[in-house]
Amino acid sequence: MSDPNDQIVLAHGGGGELTQRLIAERFLPRLGNPLLDPLGDSALLELPPGRLAFTTDSHVVQPIEFPGGDIGRLAVCGTVNDLAVMGAVPRALSLAVILEEGLPLSLLDRVIDSIAAAASEAGVNIVTGDTKVVEHQRGDGLIITTAGVGELRGGVRLDLGRVAPGDAVIVTGRIAEHGLAVMCAREGLGLQTQLRSDVAPVNGLIDRLYAAGVDLKFMRDPTRGGLAGVLADLCQATRMTVCVEERAIPMTGIARHTAELLGLDPLLVANEGKVVVVVPPEDADRALAACREHPLGKHAAVVGHVLEAQPPLVELVTRSGGRRLVQRPYGEELPRIC
Amino acid sequence: MSDPNDQIVLAHGGGGELTQRLIAERFLPRLGNPLLDPLGDSALLELPPGRLAFTTDSHVVQPIEFPGGDIGRLAVCGTVNDLAVMGAVPRALSLAVILEEGLPLSLLDRVIDSIAAAASEAGVNIVTGDTKVVEHQRGDGLIITTAGVGELRGGVRLDLGRVAPGDAVIVTGRIAEHGLAVMCAREGLGLQTQLRSDVAPVNGLIDRLYAAGVDLKFMRDPTRGGLAGVLADLCQATRMTVCVEERAIPMTGIARHTAELLGLDPLLVANEGKVVVVVPPEDADRALAACREHPLGKHAAVVGHVLEAQPPLVELVTRSGGRRLVQRPYGEELPRIC
Repeated sequence: MSDPNDQIVLAHGGGGELTQRLIAERFLPRLGNPLLDPLGDSALLELPPGRLAFTTDSHVVQPIEFPGGDIGRLAVCGTVNDLAVMGAVPRALSLAVILEEGLPLSLLDRVIDSIAAAASEAGVNIVTGDTKVVEHQRGDGLIITTAGVGELRGGVRLDLGRVAPGDAVIVTGRIAEHGLAVMCAREGLGLQTQLRSDVAPVNGLIDRLYAAGVDLKFMRDPTRGGLAGVLADLCQATRMTVCVEERAIPMTGIARHTAELLGLDPLLVANEGKVVVVVPPEDADRALAACREHPLGKHAAVVGHVLEAQPPLVELVTRSGGRRLVQRPYGEELPRIC
Repeated sequence: MSDPNDQIVLAHGGGGELTQRLIAERFLPRLGNPLLDPLGDSALLELPPGRLAFTTDSHVVQPIEFPGGDIGRLAVCGTVNDLAVMGAVPRALSLAVILEEGLPLSLLDRVIDSIAAAASEAGVNIVTGDTKVVEHQRGDGLIITTAGVGELRGGVRLDLGRVAPGDAVIVTGRIAEHGLAVMCAREGLGLQTQLRSDVAPVNGLIDRLYAAGVDLKFMRDPTRGGLAGVLADLCQATRMTVCVEERAIPMTGIARHTAELLGLDPLLVANEGKVVVVVPPEDADRALAACREHPLGKHAAVVGHVLEAQPPLVELVTRSGGRRLVQRPYGEELPRIC
């Protein structure tokens, strides 16, 4: 039994003295900035005129800490990436935490440190927040919900209606690492591998693509549902076939073998630091070059193309030259992965 | 045991087919609007140039439904009100839900209906969202986190630095009803009263105050920590004494007696449809008149004044003419109230 003084207690969530101290002693020293520090009911931001992107995500990953990241890094990157794939420049995040009674304060401190580091990496501040506490066994250790606002770039032309036969489908790096790392770290699984989650903010990588003048028609981060989920969305929205080459999909041998061992299709496994991009064929090389200039894009590859073939399907050309259909996962291949 | 087809299952949270159906069949028909319907990674809003207010709140109230409201209405109003008390006009909300396996779909439907009704009452849309599912007994039935963006009005001069001796402290209605209604509804308490939560969006009421040209120096909604918490904040930030008259504080007899029965100080009990406002003495009558024009402000009253007296304290003149200090609650007077 650890020291009760080192744990979250219900009173931390009451909105009184103890809530104030939790925020003043643990959150502000790590996350403080001129917008957050006043602790008003809302933060007030100065944004230039233009369109605003707005998004939210709740995070319930288990375990809270895993190789390559933790729930805090995941929460920041998830929201930053949802803004970035819309062509927006992330400007500010909110942070709402639900703490379970008994949560060790040392774990909370590590997660807040990780939030601070990820936010700094993404170049964005936490500007407003909320803290709640639930009784032991009514919560889940630590649940984090982030929301984010971003400024839409001028000239963004992301539009599924512009996707055309011949367009190249690019994946910006090796797939399946987040989901597999979390699965392996999960208590009871007993699998030790060198797999680490890829969780990272992709806004810097996307900045490179825009700076290179690539005509981006579609972008999405393949999180829950994995690459297969994004390709299914693309196919469904465009009513065109998407044909991908298994051989071209960037993936480490460790990831492939771990997925095999777990009986999982790596195409269905969540990523948290990757982007699927659709560009016209003549822009594919420029897009790859732009990706490879960025540390997160070293292994970017064209994995397939959009085709006119009907009915619209997602088709995978396997390593052995066979063909199989790729389907959207039905339900919960991998529970509690983000 | 209810029909398993009428319950949330883990697969609803996997990001696959079943997640899509949950959103398409239950959320979109009730909350749909042109910004939400594309279900992009972020919503794109058109906002006029100016300052943006941004806020978030997680909601873990138990029970999920209570007299006068439910967690959905609470989540919408909490965020709308946090924007409104900053002088902002709420423009868009995000909605992130965490569903516990086994949650009856009929309950979820009622809560989404309630979210839709509250959002319509506040004149704001849900424009982006997220859904996660956690295992039975790892969640709390239903947890909702909302974030909101609002447009700061021109000419807002909310500034604790402008609060001066003689300023009037106004409460816009009867206090303590949310917290008491939730406590009475809580399983096991067995108290039946006519108390109903006051949970409501206060942005319309605040619109009236601005329209009447009242010089608002400070506004806050007295939620967790109650009226006492807001007065303690006011005293702490201004380093001035706040003197309130117990007799002037709007409260029903039922609320007073219920608080007595439960051994609670009604000043510490949460409200979810009230505002504490500080105005110069010459604006007090105009502010009261403006409040009373609105259904939520019928019982508005000047409850006290700001004084120069040192040391700075919150002082209550009791009904019997005695004086006592009002202190910020230390911890959890009333757990899980919002």
